[in-house]
Amino acid sequence: MPKILIIGGVAGGASAAARARRLSEDAEIIMFERGQFVSFANCGLPYHIGGDIKDRSKLLLQTPESFLARFNVDVRVMNEVVAINREAKSVTVRNLVDGSEYQESYDFLLLSPGASPIVPPTTGIDNPLTFSLRNIPDMDRIINAIQSNKPSHATVVGGGFIGLEMMEAFHQLGIQTALIEMADQVMTPVDKEMAGFVHQEIRGKGIDLRLSTALEAVNQHDKGLTLSFNNGESLETGLLIMAIGVRPETTLARAAGLKIGELGGIWVNDEMQTSDPFIYAVGDAVEEKDFVTGKQTIVPLAGPANRQGRMAADNMLGANETYQGTQGTAICKVFDLAVASTGKNEKQLEREGISYEKVYVHTASHASYYPGAEVVSLKLMFAPETGKILGGQAVGKDGVDKRIDILAVAQRAGMTVEQLQHVELTYAPPYGSAKDVINQAAFVATNVMKGDIKAMHYHEIETLGDDQVLLDVRNPGELEAVGRFPNAINIPVDQLRQRLDELPKDKEIVVACQVGLRGNVAYRQLVNNGFKAKNLIGGYRTWKTAFC
Amino acid sequence: MPKILIIGGVAGGASAAARARRLSEDAEIIMFERGQFVSFANCGLPYHIGGDIKDRSKLLLQTPESFLARFNVDVRVMNEVVAINREAKSVTVRNLVDGSEYQESYDFLLLSPGASPIVPPTTGIDNPLTFSLRNIPDMDRIINAIQSNKPSHATVVGGGFIGLEMMEAFHQLGIQTALIEMADQVMTPVDKEMAGFVHQEIRGKGIDLRLSTALEAVNQHDKGLTLSFNNGESLETGLLIMAIGVRPETTLARAAGLKIGELGGIWVNDEMQTSDPFIYAVGDAVEEKDFVTGKQTIVPLAGPANRQGRMAADNMLGANETYQGTQGTAICKVFDLAVASTGKNEKQLEREGISYEKVYVHTASHASYYPGAEVVSLKLMFAPETGKILGGQAVGKDGVDKRIDILAVAQRAGMTVEQLQHVELTYAPPYGSAKDVINQAAFVATNVMKGDIKAMHYHEIETLGDDQVLLDVRNPGELEAVGRFPNAINIPVDQLRQRLDELPKDKEIVVACQVGLRGNVAYRQLVNNGFKAKNLIGGYRTWKTAFC
Repeated sequence: MPKILIIGGVAGGASAAARARRLSEDAEIIMFERGQFVSFANCGLPYHIGGDIKDRSKLLLQTPESFLARFNVDVRVMNEVVAINREAKSVTVRNLVDGSEYQESYDFLLLSPGASPIVPPTTGIDNPLTFSLRNIPDMDRIINAIQSNKPSHATVVGGGFIGLEMMEAFHQLGIQTALIEMADQVMTPVDKEMAGFVHQEIRGKGIDLRLSTALEAVNQHDKGLTLSFNNGESLETGLLIMAIGVRPETTLARAAGLKIGELGGIWVNDEMQTSDPFIYAVGDAVEEKDFVTGKQTIVPLAGPANRQGRMAADNMLGANETYQGTQGTAICKVFDLAVASTGKNEKQLEREGISYEKVYVHTASHASYYPGAEVVSLKLMFAPETGKILGGQAVGKDGVDKRIDILAVAQRAGMTVEQLQHVELTYAPPYGSAKDVINQAAFVATNVMKGDIKAMHYHEIETLGDDQVLLDVRNPGELEAVGRFPNAINIPVDQLRQRLDELPKDKEIVVACQVGLRGNVAYRQLVNNGFKAKNLIGGYRTWKTAFC
Repeated sequence: MPKILIIGGVAGGASAAARARRLSEDAEIIMFERGQFVSFANCGLPYHIGGDIKDRSKLLLQTPESFLARFNVDVRVMNEVVAINREAKSVTVRNLVDGSEYQESYDFLLLSPGASPIVPPTTGIDNPLTFSLRNIPDMDRIINAIQSNKPSHATVVGGGFIGLEMMEAFHQLGIQTALIEMADQVMTPVDKEMAGFVHQEIRGKGIDLRLSTALEAVNQHDKGLTLSFNNGESLETGLLIMAIGVRPETTLARAAGLKIGELGGIWVNDEMQTSDPFIYAVGDAVEEKDFVTGKQTIVPLAGPANRQGRMAADNMLGANETYQGTQGTAICKVFDLAVASTGKNEKQLEREGISYEKVYVHTASHASYYPGAEVVSLKLMFAPETGKILGGQAVGKDGVDKRIDILAVAQRAGMTVEQLQHVELTYAPPYGSAKDVINQAAFVATNVMKGDIKAMHYHEIETLGDDQVLLDVRNPGELEAVGRFPNAINIPVDQLRQRLDELPKDKEIVVACQVGLRGNVAYRQLVNNGFKAKNLIGGYRTWKTAFC
């Protein structure tokens, strides 16, 4: 029976160890972890800092002892593998407690070393008030700094998952918080116009959000840190979190001469096998296949890591399971909002040269007459010829995870937007609508695909020509309350039929309403009456948010 | 341009009218509704009675005036179509206000008459304290009876959607409530062992739930009603709701000689066309194709009705859209629980002679270390040879709608349980788990399919033979706290490896734990050590609930 060594005792490594034992009682399984902890809840760290998860011990899902008892896995914490000797099929391990080194042989080796936070070589960044967050000791250090220094102000650099979660944690602790992001948006898995909702939410909570801003220098003084930015601004803060991203941990793999992919992750085939057939690799350290493009990608997420670990164990023990590619389905809580996405975003589709069409809907999370309904703002991208789903994004206070999960499954199953119209989802007033957000998005997408709607998009509104007229079909009261487009004429949809003669037949009428639904009614009226027209997909709400 | 008449102004009819107008500005569209209201929120009625929806006007989604203004549809409420004259392509309409009659011709006619409550010919049931609930006037009558009579006790007969919702409404109003159901379970779309969770919830709220009980007679007296049941029991109540089901409204269709299906609904083809090509029919009145069996079915649900209406409009105006069958995806809120299902249940699969396998999982709705996680109890049925999803059921306090929606989409896309393992769902601690409920169910199902688990089911536990041993691998403390199986021996999973010699090699070891997960770990240990074994799928929790 094989002897399996596993490097890394969190998500992918721990999943592989448990699965391997279920498959084989006789396999010898040793798991090395250079840290003190295995199988901890790394996604929960910011929530313990912020106080949502009160009990630190809840983050420690398994111990070496519990792993041994249940799975007969020899877990060696504080043991760092420092070299892989492929010829000898052995690894060199350093015991970090006493500094001793030893060899351990393997039949199969699994690399699950994860990724490490990127810390740029910014002047002054190496100071005791600057932290990144990746593991339990990192978390403990941050909590300790908060408790010891009682900072009145904290700064987070980086608007990705960890950055956003740390921002919220500080805010919950009553600490004034700044969020610094080099790009012009946070949460880059979604596109900028969708991130606009997040920007509104963040600013609405009093966070000092600075986009398109890069940290250039850190200056420690006796009262804290002075941060200097590329735009000449500066900021006094008491604590700095660097959360600009992670890079695959490939030191060991490189030293062992394993193939590294073009993106800098460990190369693996569909069976999670590295260029050495006796060595597998999974999780944040590897390059995997993108579900949409088929190209290599790096997606450091827990779900893929866990499933890859399970699959690598299958394959080490004789199966031929193949990884089906990563969509990158992801979600983040940002105060009262959830923001989520699956598949490719528009930036990526453009970069890849993949042709796409897109629609936006803003629809109640459940029957609007039942209490608690919130708007789900959803963006759906699809192939204009085949209708295949390319990606989806959603933001809102309720039901966002559900809609992106539905799109993720539909995309993985190869569904088209035409087929998506027919999906039959749970409906009762507390949970959904007879025509769900998803059905509605699919209706609009199919209308666009079939040419039943000519789509105008928010970014085209700024550059309307002399041969185009912007027609706002909302009610005058709404324009007062919500805001108006510059240079639009206003005829409420319910008066349009009687007032068609106010519109020019020789110009293209660009119809707009709040979300696109009444716009479609008006658009169809116009087209069926012989006008040239387009409908602003997503309406005022998408247009307005894009510039937040 | 065609003249389209629509009979029925709620879900299917209203959807068809709006869609027809969007497709054609010139079509003449007249919608007849014998009631006072069109396009009202029939699914919201119980929630207004119970007080969740405070404002009655919220239930009135459209008025004849708003329909006219927006869609140029001539809506005639209090106008009942009393005959269809197919030869003449006209209908006879009675104006219910003045009793006059008139003819209206059509090019296309759409029937969307809905269904009517079944009221059995029970002795004494025709009394002023007995109601059914289908429309706004029904609702108003019930509210009026509650306000006038101030009943201290109400009885609901029928444990379907409306019955359960009315039970909750009465409970919320502080009225003592009895729920009477003739079958041995409420909520028949799910199987009995899943309904057990609902029975616990209902009884836990102090409802007098009486299963396998049929109403035989009603006796009105000066203080209320005396109800007599088939088991000899009787009950004093102040108000009685009959909610035992609905039957398709086919009076007009039958009189016009349209084909009626074997199940008693209006027969339509995949384009929602009746046996008369100029007459379409949609919604609760029709028989439609079952997505799984391909046979005719009657599923009175709002989602299909709305989509069918939209599609019928497409087809009347020249398209060839085909209805893709009904899965029957449904959900009901029962106090703090949601109970939901899609596809076929086990009772139906057995009746149809479709071979199936099933698995149960009980898994946290999101990361268990993050506050607010609740157990989702999920049942997944699939074809044992192909792995195709046949149906799913779920019960829990959080995340139930999402999981059934995911299964509904996966089933519609033709996914197998093997493919379902790979779905990549949104994960962050507040929303899900790195291995979601759905992934876990798919893992177990795939294990069963591949023979990696031999499944034992809850109903087999009662009839274990002398050559079988029931092994409970939970901790002794759990047995104390949660309850135990009769006749099980107890070896905690984490001690099993050391205590294998306590188990007989010549008998089949039936392993059980709380939900099936540790059972699988123990099961694999036993099998890999040469024991014959089975794992109790869904564990103690499924077994226990099945008898609630």
